[in-house]
Amino acid sequence: MTEAEQGRVTIRAIADEAGVSVPTVSRVINGRSDVAPETRKRVETLLTERGYQRRRSTRTPSRNARLVDLVFNELDSPWAVEIIRGVEDACHAQGVGTVVSAIHRRRAASEQWLDNLRTRASDGVILVVSTLSSPILEQLRHLRVPMVVLDPAGGPVMDAPAIGATNWAGGMAATDHLIELGHSRIGFIHGPKQVLASRARFDGYRAALDAAGLTYDPAMVYDGDFYHQSGFDAAKEVLALANPPTAIFASSDQMAFGAYEAIRQRGLLIPEHVSVVGFDDLPESRWTSPPLTTVRQPLSEMGALAARTVLELASGNDVESPRLELATEMVVRESTTRHQGR
Amino acid sequence: MTEAEQGRVTIRAIADEAGVSVPTVSRVINGRSDVAPETRKRVETLLTERGYQRRRSTRTPSRNARLVDLVFNELDSPWAVEIIRGVEDACHAQGVGTVVSAIHRRRAASEQWLDNLRTRASDGVILVVSTLSSPILEQLRHLRVPMVVLDPAGGPVMDAPAIGATNWAGGMAATDHLIELGHSRIGFIHGPKQVLASRARFDGYRAALDAAGLTYDPAMVYDGDFYHQSGFDAAKEVLALANPPTAIFASSDQMAFGAYEAIRQRGLLIPEHVSVVGFDDLPESRWTSPPLTTVRQPLSEMGALAARTVLELASGNDVESPRLELATEMVVRESTTRHQGR
Repeated sequence: MTEAEQGRVTIRAIADEAGVSVPTVSRVINGRSDVAPETRKRVETLLTERGYQRRRSTRTPSRNARLVDLVFNELDSPWAVEIIRGVEDACHAQGVGTVVSAIHRRRAASEQWLDNLRTRASDGVILVVSTLSSPILEQLRHLRVPMVVLDPAGGPVMDAPAIGATNWAGGMAATDHLIELGHSRIGFIHGPKQVLASRARFDGYRAALDAAGLTYDPAMVYDGDFYHQSGFDAAKEVLALANPPTAIFASSDQMAFGAYEAIRQRGLLIPEHVSVVGFDDLPESRWTSPPLTTVRQPLSEMGALAARTVLELASGNDVESPRLELATEMVVRESTTRHQGR
Repeated sequence: MTEAEQGRVTIRAIADEAGVSVPTVSRVINGRSDVAPETRKRVETLLTERGYQRRRSTRTPSRNARLVDLVFNELDSPWAVEIIRGVEDACHAQGVGTVVSAIHRRRAASEQWLDNLRTRASDGVILVVSTLSSPILEQLRHLRVPMVVLDPAGGPVMDAPAIGATNWAGGMAATDHLIELGHSRIGFIHGPKQVLASRARFDGYRAALDAAGLTYDPAMVYDGDFYHQSGFDAAKEVLALANPPTAIFASSDQMAFGAYEAIRQRGLLIPEHVSVVGFDDLPESRWTSPPLTTVRQPLSEMGALAARTVLELASGNDVESPRLELATEMVVRESTTRHQGR
């Protein structure tokens, strides 16, 4: 049996089992929109369950849509615009447009996006989401659209090349910076536990303490969720300790801004009384009072790399590595200073 | 002579004058990409100079691209993501994708975007630019793509429906708020002079002073450009006055953040020593220390309205008004307080 025969047999078997015609199954496989939703669903489920493999030869790269899709969960993150800028720049350089979508972690929104994508076609998809429901992933695979995961949060692997940042090294660099300034009691505000990047930044913090021979004190570590309010709450608690830290490493800039407000409300000055380090280098970290010392995530560079990678895949080329991490960089501004020896 | 004959005559005349075939002129008119750039340019120039009018009947609305183009000068503005969110949301609701582009105020980038648009088609274009070179506008008109200008800056009219915000009313509301708190010496940091929104905000400031019977003092008005540094510089100067203002109205949030830093560097407290009001309500104005009192521009609502308007135009409907302004809203946070009676 040739590969071609095997392919035909499978499509026919799927058609028989689904109670539809062979052309209908082909239409589903080719991502055409003229199939009733229930039929599409039934056929896609069978294609997945029966392990249908499209013949290699039909996987010819096309790159004719001249569009790349950039998909966020929400467009409310302040770093979204950084990523958009990087992706748009790299796509634009190749004459490709950037379609930006938000799927709001909702099934209906994701399917509407997929419907739109089917109508107009796409050369590739960049997902800035750490989770995507499996049916959506299945459909993307059926559509044979190349995928790249842009993953500032270090989420679980989704069977697609991922672009991230060196979170562990960044966490270590931030802590090293404070240790070099003479701080030994360094508070840490943790990101959400289910996000791998949170853990990587925390592990970097501990590694730096260990390397400097400082004792790790769990009482100095507070939970947060990367957002402003949690940084405020954590810093408020940490400042109320009998022996509070002289420096706080908030593992996101937004949490650092929350810590700023808690410190201000307590009548303390940054950096004279408390040094603060963030993580991200959002544009506004230059504009806070004082400007924030932080760890830069190269978000627009990550976006550009994701765009170039997905366009490489669209041209039929393979990528060298399933995961690439771009280096973070310490940006020293005015929120940190030498330990005043309280 | 029928309208059709008139149209044919004109196309032929253009073809003769340009030294090309009639089909070539048609290709240019229909926005096809298979025309050499120099030829296209020559033909488009002639079409414009000779005042060629496309026959009405061919202007059938299509709406089949299922894509709307959202075009920025630069994707570096913190309010870009607010606009993208509004546009994406409204387009998504109609099953339409949002293509985001930045043209960097450069001719080459604009033309590359137009090339891309020609290949894949677009149902409509939302321009978040206060200026666009005339040749680009001409080409967009030739392509018969509906256009809407989303204009937070209140730029000059571009022969397309415009969506803006009530800058004058917002300027008046901010100043009223400070007057009600007992302030009579109110500094004003002006936006760039060539932007109409700057002037509208300033006029609102003066109108509020006049209405309250307060004397307008030009020494209290400082030049800025909407960006952070200019707010810092202006506030630094204003605070050095022998009789400094007790409140500062910075006509953009970024300038307000700059003023924060100047105030902090002078060892003064906000709002105890100086009240500060901004304009925009960027997301980060919630996160500054203290949170910023400001005038909200409904950027995502403006984006959504622009999207709905351009899709209406794409469906062949007319818009009610050539310019729509959405109301600004006073958002009182913690950077303003009652005049302490220094």
